[in-house]
Amino acid sequence: MDAALSQFFAQVDKDQNIYVDRLREVVAIPSVSSDVSHRPDVFTMGAWIQKELTRLGVDFEIRDPGTHEMDGHTLQLPPIVLGAYGRDPAKKTVLVYGHYDVQPALKEDGWATEPFELVENEKGELVGRGSTDDKGPILGWLNAIEAHQKLGLELPVNLRMCFEGMEENGSEGLDDVIVAEAKGWFKDVDAVCISDNYWLGDSKPCITYGLRGISYYKLAIKGPGRDLHSGVFGGTVHEPMTDLAYIFSKLVTPQGEILIPGIMDDVAPLTAAEEASYPPLDFNLSTLHNAIDAKNTIHDNHIDALKGRWRYPSLSLHGIEGAFSAAGAKTVIPAKVIGKFSIRSVPNMVPEKIDACVVKYINDEFAKLGSKNTVEVECLHAGKPWVASFEHPNYVAAAAAVERVFKVKPDLTREGGSIPVTLTFQDALNKNVLLLPMGRSSDGAHSINEKLDRSNYIEGTKLLGAYLWELSTKNF
Amino acid sequence: MDAALSQFFAQVDKDQNIYVDRLREVVAIPSVSSDVSHRPDVFTMGAWIQKELTRLGVDFEIRDPGTHEMDGHTLQLPPIVLGAYGRDPAKKTVLVYGHYDVQPALKEDGWATEPFELVENEKGELVGRGSTDDKGPILGWLNAIEAHQKLGLELPVNLRMCFEGMEENGSEGLDDVIVAEAKGWFKDVDAVCISDNYWLGDSKPCITYGLRGISYYKLAIKGPGRDLHSGVFGGTVHEPMTDLAYIFSKLVTPQGEILIPGIMDDVAPLTAAEEASYPPLDFNLSTLHNAIDAKNTIHDNHIDALKGRWRYPSLSLHGIEGAFSAAGAKTVIPAKVIGKFSIRSVPNMVPEKIDACVVKYINDEFAKLGSKNTVEVECLHAGKPWVASFEHPNYVAAAAAVERVFKVKPDLTREGGSIPVTLTFQDALNKNVLLLPMGRSSDGAHSINEKLDRSNYIEGTKLLGAYLWELSTKNF
Repeated sequence: MDAALSQFFAQVDKDQNIYVDRLREVVAIPSVSSDVSHRPDVFTMGAWIQKELTRLGVDFEIRDPGTHEMDGHTLQLPPIVLGAYGRDPAKKTVLVYGHYDVQPALKEDGWATEPFELVENEKGELVGRGSTDDKGPILGWLNAIEAHQKLGLELPVNLRMCFEGMEENGSEGLDDVIVAEAKGWFKDVDAVCISDNYWLGDSKPCITYGLRGISYYKLAIKGPGRDLHSGVFGGTVHEPMTDLAYIFSKLVTPQGEILIPGIMDDVAPLTAAEEASYPPLDFNLSTLHNAIDAKNTIHDNHIDALKGRWRYPSLSLHGIEGAFSAAGAKTVIPAKVIGKFSIRSVPNMVPEKIDACVVKYINDEFAKLGSKNTVEVECLHAGKPWVASFEHPNYVAAAAAVERVFKVKPDLTREGGSIPVTLTFQDALNKNVLLLPMGRSSDGAHSINEKLDRSNYIEGTKLLGAYLWELSTKNF
Repeated sequence: MDAALSQFFAQVDKDQNIYVDRLREVVAIPSVSSDVSHRPDVFTMGAWIQKELTRLGVDFEIRDPGTHEMDGHTLQLPPIVLGAYGRDPAKKTVLVYGHYDVQPALKEDGWATEPFELVENEKGELVGRGSTDDKGPILGWLNAIEAHQKLGLELPVNLRMCFEGMEENGSEGLDDVIVAEAKGWFKDVDAVCISDNYWLGDSKPCITYGLRGISYYKLAIKGPGRDLHSGVFGGTVHEPMTDLAYIFSKLVTPQGEILIPGIMDDVAPLTAAEEASYPPLDFNLSTLHNAIDAKNTIHDNHIDALKGRWRYPSLSLHGIEGAFSAAGAKTVIPAKVIGKFSIRSVPNMVPEKIDACVVKYINDEFAKLGSKNTVEVECLHAGKPWVASFEHPNYVAAAAAVERVFKVKPDLTREGGSIPVTLTFQDALNKNVLLLPMGRSSDGAHSINEKLDRSNYIEGTKLLGAYLWELSTKNF
């Protein structure tokens, strides 16, 4: 393995300008999945992937998720590309996932350069939409295969691939395909690797073993039959906004403590291993202050802040539908207001129990108000939290690969948000899933001036290859 | 006086179809002051008034308020028409006010008929935009003059008139003219009469002696430097929405009780005379329930409901600027939210003291939250409450005129909203101001299918004339 990896690393270094040109080629395809006018570009990008797989000798099939409705149009969904490279029963089989669609981007949004023209700046950053999210990582896998082929080296594992074109727009149709292929295209899979997130900071690689879930609620309070003038009716009716303010104020404290009884009961206790994983992390309060462009953090140390971000639940009030929301002054008593809030959940919380706690509590609190208005709570969508064991061989292999490439032990991180496909793979295949990021915290994935550092792209390509070699040595 | 009024009433009955045709003529001029494309029609309507004054031998001058900015255009403001009819030093001088502009109206809004074509339906309702607000009342004054002229009867008082064309759009420029003319065009005025409001119900006339004031606030809470993703940052920052919900919940109870210390201190006590004015009122809880299209009233009797509407202050939460307000689910932590609320004030509350109480209380409550966010409270606009003595001869005359025309004692009402010109006249001229409505509660002044009952128009014309005769007999 050591000799093979030395050759492989040297080949990657040698071909790095080819890889950058390849990234330039795909960044130039504006595959924005949430924009009707760019839907053909998403298909062009899907075709580019298929052309590359053909060139590399990867077997592939496409799955057609059908059509969907968007902005008044019925649109064809882009293909889900399933690849298979190697079918040796003596080898482990690894499923890798990536998405070939991107977020919208317009120069006018504040980009320093044209978003769909890859530019390498003086800091060695490859700037362009999709560079880090998620075209760079997809190319990482393809580059690794190509480098092995140039060296006449066989890959130490069988690969399965799942590349979709709707991730930035709800991954429509993907879950059904994964479930359907669990005993089909994916039947031999031993482990899953997703490269679609980021280092915790900017200097140290990480591997990610947990994500929070979400339960998103609408809380509708209805009073008068129509909006009323506050001069004529103020002081005579129970106002829905007043009731909503009371209920909102009973959900969470300004310090972030959730006040709903029962919500904290199922939060998994902090283990010693997890506690030990925090101190080495590449993170401090100023990283957080820079990210939020302010200093209004709840905690006075970065470890509690990270625990607040990813291993404890949180509750955020997002806003109100139906109230006056424009600039200026309007003297309205809104007739019906819909408060929006969500709870980020962590293991071992389950959506059904969260719902039960939320609904009971809100109804109880509303009854105390003595209001003649009516209340209705509804969960708009829910996703379960996810956590994997970082002691699984899949993680041990990834950590060893990081040490091999970067000469440093990786951070063991979770994330506060959700990557729903993670849980789908885990539940459908019942295999360990690993998140192995290529880019950095500062890449600006959904923002202007998205970038992927050249070093992250090139060392990341090495990392993905090394991970496959390390995994091939594990027994599980 | 009795003989003169008998003749006058008979003449009004005889000419009623002429009056309806005249109303049809002015409703056909779509003098919408808040719509750039209709501004020429407002001028056409102003010219129509001047033509009528000329025909009736009323001296008049116009005051030009200049220009204003609206929707990106610099527009000429419509003329304020000042009329003078009679200059006999032996007579009382009465100033009457009306506005010749109207609210917007489109058939598509849900009108049963074309809004700018007056239609008389089978219920005897004259349906059309401006019929009741406020072209009918303006014509009432002109009809009364015409009827006297036809009869060869001299008016028993001198009249001064103030007709504006911007009432539905902030009465821009009017206050300055009133203040400037206090010792000019209006210098001999003994009493003021405004016919621009409505009966309390649908069956009994009223005269109106009080209006609430308003103090409108924005309450800005600022946290992170930009909107944040609730997955990534929920649980790590003090969220402005949470703080705002807490402050909102401390302002007013679901029963409408204002919680701000000091706010209730200056509320004038209920006098015996005022208390006695409530039982005869044409109002009950079902009138209120119909008006709000629901039954969520705070009080279980109509007298407390009316006191809540017009003689006690109220506080309404209107909405939030900067939070998520659309349909659907967005997982945002808004960086800066601006809560909007207002207090309807009553005598003897003063805006400066209201401001002081609000600002101190919010800052005190915010300090208790232990939040690292910042708060800022600002009063966007304030208007004082107004109340007149209904024992003044101006009111006694109006009440006698109501009894003469309708054979019933009028309701003595206040209103919960504001008619700012009322206070301007009172403060600038230092004379008693009376609100003497022509239309009914159900006229739908700012709504679709605005109407003025034929009987309200014709009996209302009699009322305005009778009021002038009754006033001429008073000494004050």
